[in-house]
Amino acid sequence: MTDQTSHRYCVIMCGGVGSRFWPYSRENCPKQFIDFLGTGRSLLQMSYDRILPMVPKENVLVVTNEKYASLIREQLPEVLPSNILLEPARRNTAPCIAWAAYHIAAIDPQASIIVNPSDHLITREGIFEDCVRRGFEFVENNDALLTLGITPTRPETGYGYIQIGKEAEPGILKVKTFTEKPNLELAKVFLDSGEFFWNSGIFLWRASSIIDALRKYDPDLTSLFDRGAELFATPRETEFIEANFMSCPPNSIDYAVMEKADNVYVECVNFGWNDLGTWSALYDNSPKNQEGNVTQCRVLAYESSGSIFAVREADKLVVAHGLKDYIVADAGDVLLICPKSEEQRIKQMVNDVRIAYKEQYL
Amino acid sequence: MTDQTSHRYCVIMCGGVGSRFWPYSRENCPKQFIDFLGTGRSLLQMSYDRILPMVPKENVLVVTNEKYASLIREQLPEVLPSNILLEPARRNTAPCIAWAAYHIAAIDPQASIIVNPSDHLITREGIFEDCVRRGFEFVENNDALLTLGITPTRPETGYGYIQIGKEAEPGILKVKTFTEKPNLELAKVFLDSGEFFWNSGIFLWRASSIIDALRKYDPDLTSLFDRGAELFATPRETEFIEANFMSCPPNSIDYAVMEKADNVYVECVNFGWNDLGTWSALYDNSPKNQEGNVTQCRVLAYESSGSIFAVREADKLVVAHGLKDYIVADAGDVLLICPKSEEQRIKQMVNDVRIAYKEQYL
Repeated sequence: MTDQTSHRYCVIMCGGVGSRFWPYSRENCPKQFIDFLGTGRSLLQMSYDRILPMVPKENVLVVTNEKYASLIREQLPEVLPSNILLEPARRNTAPCIAWAAYHIAAIDPQASIIVNPSDHLITREGIFEDCVRRGFEFVENNDALLTLGITPTRPETGYGYIQIGKEAEPGILKVKTFTEKPNLELAKVFLDSGEFFWNSGIFLWRASSIIDALRKYDPDLTSLFDRGAELFATPRETEFIEANFMSCPPNSIDYAVMEKADNVYVECVNFGWNDLGTWSALYDNSPKNQEGNVTQCRVLAYESSGSIFAVREADKLVVAHGLKDYIVADAGDVLLICPKSEEQRIKQMVNDVRIAYKEQYL
Repeated sequence: MTDQTSHRYCVIMCGGVGSRFWPYSRENCPKQFIDFLGTGRSLLQMSYDRILPMVPKENVLVVTNEKYASLIREQLPEVLPSNILLEPARRNTAPCIAWAAYHIAAIDPQASIIVNPSDHLITREGIFEDCVRRGFEFVENNDALLTLGITPTRPETGYGYIQIGKEAEPGILKVKTFTEKPNLELAKVFLDSGEFFWNSGIFLWRASSIIDALRKYDPDLTSLFDRGAELFATPRETEFIEANFMSCPPNSIDYAVMEKADNVYVECVNFGWNDLGTWSALYDNSPKNQEGNVTQCRVLAYESSGSIFAVREADKLVVAHGLKDYIVADAGDVLLICPKSEEQRIKQMVNDVRIAYKEQYL
């Protein structure tokens, strides 16, 4: 690796609970820890594998809730224990990213960082690699906050969109606006315009750039971290975080910084990305058999089509008749059978389960 | 118990494989061994419990395939080992009943016998008890082959029917004909006529009466058993059966004797009987919740009705949306989801499973 590469860091955000993928995703083992695609590697492990060609192994950090510490150690034994940042509470992405930036800046003031979700799917890793290298070069040469914008392929109403402005260099453009999830009509306009890209939640910046931006746009947060400035990357960091992290107000990095800063850029990319946010997204991104079913287990299906069958237990057989466009998800102590068209109700179902059975099935 | 009672015997036929209840019913643990109704007792155990008021415990015999020997010993530890007759092969009911009759006659030439399936449901046990006592008295006083005929409540096409003739005594009538499963039109005629009763497969007779009838109508079978006449109820019986039972041609007792003999009677009864032959039968005979679902496990059902949810694993939760009139049966390594209206296809599904996976799920 080049000299510059040794200053490149990766932060994998791994604290999500993935409730839309219940019952596969559970509070004590969310989606990112599951081998969702049956490849033998969990989504987290795939996220880790994917970044190694661009970032030295010892520069990969994972930020997660402290209750997932043992899962991380089990799934990523190669990650240094000191590179696992354990949040005492869930505070959304801004505090998570701020902590990681302070931590890395204390180790390496010249650091550049890619912030990566742990539970997304990227199918074209060669293209991803090229995009990430270009992104690192851009932020190393510019005081810029760079987000990866996915070329949209359908009028998706479940994602945020980024509107592009002036080109800074080939493939990297100034961001004009961030837009929350649009309705279908607006999403179609976005798609046709060619000016809008999906917000992937993958960011690149120098540690100093994001800390500067946080100081400017979220000073309450940075003043909290600044109080422990000399403790980051020391044995006393954990103690400081335990005492102070709870005080961070929950906030997303988009809202805290990206929508406000004036040095925000987007790299327009197309590397087979999906956030695997829902069962339907998993269905859409999985190979289908002749009947259009996605079968992640042994299935004998009769008069069934457009369905996804996912069973945790190895070798379990599903025999199904007359299921059209269904989700069948068997996760040991919970079996979910639900039409794909009703999947937005899964969150409500999880609530109902909580009311009826407390934490037992969550 | 009276003197007469000490001559009363019960034969529980326990060799069925229950393939229509797959995947709950398996080759190595058929339906009769399962606590199907969630009462804490298997259907076999319920059959045993039900007969004890009328028959001395030491007179209860179980006939089954030798591969179920350990299941029987486990579920009915009270049954004497010498009262468990283990068939080396499946040969339908005639050889089974013949063997039991020879065995019992060797112990007690005055014996009267009730032959009982092990996998039926009887809900009104008090009435059953009265019927059985009356039946025993009838066959003890008459050289009669008595079958219990269930008062039909619907034009069922899945059962055999018995047409009644002249009354012999109150509630017990000469049988005019046995009729195989009728079509719906004919079943309606049967129901309306008041002359037809369902063939329950429960029989009463003296040991000597059934042996005489078998000698007359199935002499090949009795000549085979007669060759070992002096061996029944001796230590050499097992050896004799091992050597000869395989040679019995498969045959039902209905076809071998009941449809041919001229001393066949029916006791018309009404004690909440169901043969639990199918999932729909189980559904029909189980208490339903407000939505008309039968739930043998924890279920949260949305827009679902008329369905039966059966899960083997204790505490497993099923969350279902949009299932109308379905069978959902989760038996550990197999999950079946099938409309009740398609349940006659389960046998075909089991065949397909055998083709695809050999014996693994059977």
